[in-house]
Amino acid sequence: MTGIDEQLELIRRGSDEILVEAELVERLKAGRPLRVKAGFDPTAPDLHLGHAVLLNKMRQFQDLGHHVMFLIGDFTGLIGDPTGKNATRPPLSPEQIQANAQTYRAQVFKILDPEKTEICFNSSWINALGAAGMLKLAAQHTVARMLERDDFAKRFAGNQPIAIHEFLYPLCQGYDSVALKADIELGGTDQKFNLLVGRELQKQHGQAPQVILMMPLLEGLDGVNKMSKSLGNYVGIDEPAREQFGKLMSVSDTLMWRYFELLSARSSAEVAALKQSVLEGRNPRDIKVELAQEIITRFHNRVAAEDALADFEARFQRNAIPDDVPEIKLVVPPQGLGIAQVLRQAGLTGSTSEALRMIDQGGVRMDGEKVSDKGLLLAAGQAVVLQVGKRKFAKICTHLE
Amino acid sequence: MTGIDEQLELIRRGSDEILVEAELVERLKAGRPLRVKAGFDPTAPDLHLGHAVLLNKMRQFQDLGHHVMFLIGDFTGLIGDPTGKNATRPPLSPEQIQANAQTYRAQVFKILDPEKTEICFNSSWINALGAAGMLKLAAQHTVARMLERDDFAKRFAGNQPIAIHEFLYPLCQGYDSVALKADIELGGTDQKFNLLVGRELQKQHGQAPQVILMMPLLEGLDGVNKMSKSLGNYVGIDEPAREQFGKLMSVSDTLMWRYFELLSARSSAEVAALKQSVLEGRNPRDIKVELAQEIITRFHNRVAAEDALADFEARFQRNAIPDDVPEIKLVVPPQGLGIAQVLRQAGLTGSTSEALRMIDQGGVRMDGEKVSDKGLLLAAGQAVVLQVGKRKFAKICTHLE
Repeated sequence: MTGIDEQLELIRRGSDEILVEAELVERLKAGRPLRVKAGFDPTAPDLHLGHAVLLNKMRQFQDLGHHVMFLIGDFTGLIGDPTGKNATRPPLSPEQIQANAQTYRAQVFKILDPEKTEICFNSSWINALGAAGMLKLAAQHTVARMLERDDFAKRFAGNQPIAIHEFLYPLCQGYDSVALKADIELGGTDQKFNLLVGRELQKQHGQAPQVILMMPLLEGLDGVNKMSKSLGNYVGIDEPAREQFGKLMSVSDTLMWRYFELLSARSSAEVAALKQSVLEGRNPRDIKVELAQEIITRFHNRVAAEDALADFEARFQRNAIPDDVPEIKLVVPPQGLGIAQVLRQAGLTGSTSEALRMIDQGGVRMDGEKVSDKGLLLAAGQAVVLQVGKRKFAKICTHLE
Repeated sequence: MTGIDEQLELIRRGSDEILVEAELVERLKAGRPLRVKAGFDPTAPDLHLGHAVLLNKMRQFQDLGHHVMFLIGDFTGLIGDPTGKNATRPPLSPEQIQANAQTYRAQVFKILDPEKTEICFNSSWINALGAAGMLKLAAQHTVARMLERDDFAKRFAGNQPIAIHEFLYPLCQGYDSVALKADIELGGTDQKFNLLVGRELQKQHGQAPQVILMMPLLEGLDGVNKMSKSLGNYVGIDEPAREQFGKLMSVSDTLMWRYFELLSARSSAEVAALKQSVLEGRNPRDIKVELAQEIITRFHNRVAAEDALADFEARFQRNAIPDDVPEIKLVVPPQGLGIAQVLRQAGLTGSTSEALRMIDQGGVRMDGEKVSDKGLLLAAGQAVVLQVGKRKFAKICTHLE
């Protein structure tokens, strides 16, 4: 196994918080493979780079020789969403859960080592608790402490209903750590409360409390909101290489470094060297190409990455988009914003009628491609370069209010 | 079956509240035997007249032709008390639960008709819920509404911990009503919240909500506190007849009428006639004898009741305790109050040393019996007649602060 200090450096990288690092050091010193847990929803997943942040961290643990448990929280999926606040989500059948697990497998093993990944389902030990076990579990936490959780506290203060079973979910998640004898649990910063419940329950069950390692939530392409499919500001793991490339090239230079930290497999030293090269005059655009190439190579392959780059460059050279295009942020409604509106609001045309005329005349390009559809809508989370005539360019970043 | 109005009059008798009486009338009109539920703890019981209030009401329903379900809440007993706040109560085994049920049977069938009583255990349907069913159950109520319950509200406001499983107990009790398809649930006034949860859960399960009938909590012999074994102010169902008689004769005239209302099988008209006779000059003591006779006959038999009366009268005649003994209420500490202190505080002696001297000389009697033990302690909830010398009498009622 790698030395403690080297392990620590890799484990710390990109993490938001480790609780308690001294305990982590103690466990690493023991020299045995640590049991590393991370939990995922049982719904059919469409993984994007936001998920990859956690998966990368899991992969690092695997590379360090530790035992990674990919936990699918199917217990609640099996019973459906009982709140009845929205349309009741029908329970998933065991077959659907297995199908969803298969979808996960197809995607996560682009990052995780299948040989070193244990996939498990919490229904197996939580159903075994029975009604009495659930009652005992509920006895191990108090109402007041549960109401300390941020979102509960806000809803309680705001007289928004909290159904009692919502108090049981964190306890189930915590009990998963007991059942799995987890040494470490990984999760997003928004999971802190639940991860801490795991520590407590382990103590109450006579286990040493797990170390918790929280990863930041990755910003989406807009650099503002958390990356999410519903906001449209994401890069999907399964998207075509050319689309991934275009999206990644659209991020700001600041966000690019953030992505390096959280998504790249390059060492911290390599990333530092790249930063230095930019300070010495290298074009950040070239660095962005390297990031995009690395990511596409991981989720597709080297050939696809090179093809995406060649395609991108051909289009840019053909259309001679300058490097210093001004960036404009546009608010778009959930249903999207029409292209003519976009052109006018970006100042590329004086009016929407001028915009429509320019489209008719073939004088409008988006990312180098001629726009012919006057009904084209730009959704939130897009980043495209629009060109009107020979000289007017703008990079448009769209986001919801 | 008896007519609706007659049924209603009997059902109403002594009850504190019926929710919703109009619904009760509707169900009575249907003419079918109603399913009447009352729940009891799974611990080894030592029933006293406080329990008899509810049992009498159950008996009345039986006499009216309804179906009575004696529910033993063994689900929680089977898992023990998991709060860990006090010494953890070890779980009861199924054998212990059955033994406790047997103890109930031996006592409750002095009131209930065994032929018309269904004894049931809620572990059978609550265990069948499993962990997932418990989660669904918990989804049917909100944290805020649960915190409206008086005792929860006080503890929450006072920063006293409430374990989350405590929120599940009322839901289990409510679910019992669903499982039993209860038409009516009987309980003490302190059970109102839980009884209402039953109504709600039944609605959520597509059942007509049960009518709830709340009986008052019977005052103990001191006429102040709720009758309870731990306060010592009780008459046990299994106590010897002579003890029951002495205790019942010690209650105040006011309390006697209360006991008539809640414990006697006499009709309201008969009780009214007895009250009238007192207004016309009859000694209330004679009425008290009738009450005691009735109760002892129920829990023992007519012969035992007559023997108790004869014994009581013989002692009183022998010791010539006057009828107009002054009544004195004394506060005693939890560990009891020494007899000498009692005599001094009651004004029967000028000092404790005088009291001790009088005991030495054989000049102190309690309920007609000579007191020789100077270390005698009076506990809270006792009502005794003390006599010093020939002429000084006082009836002492003891209670905790």
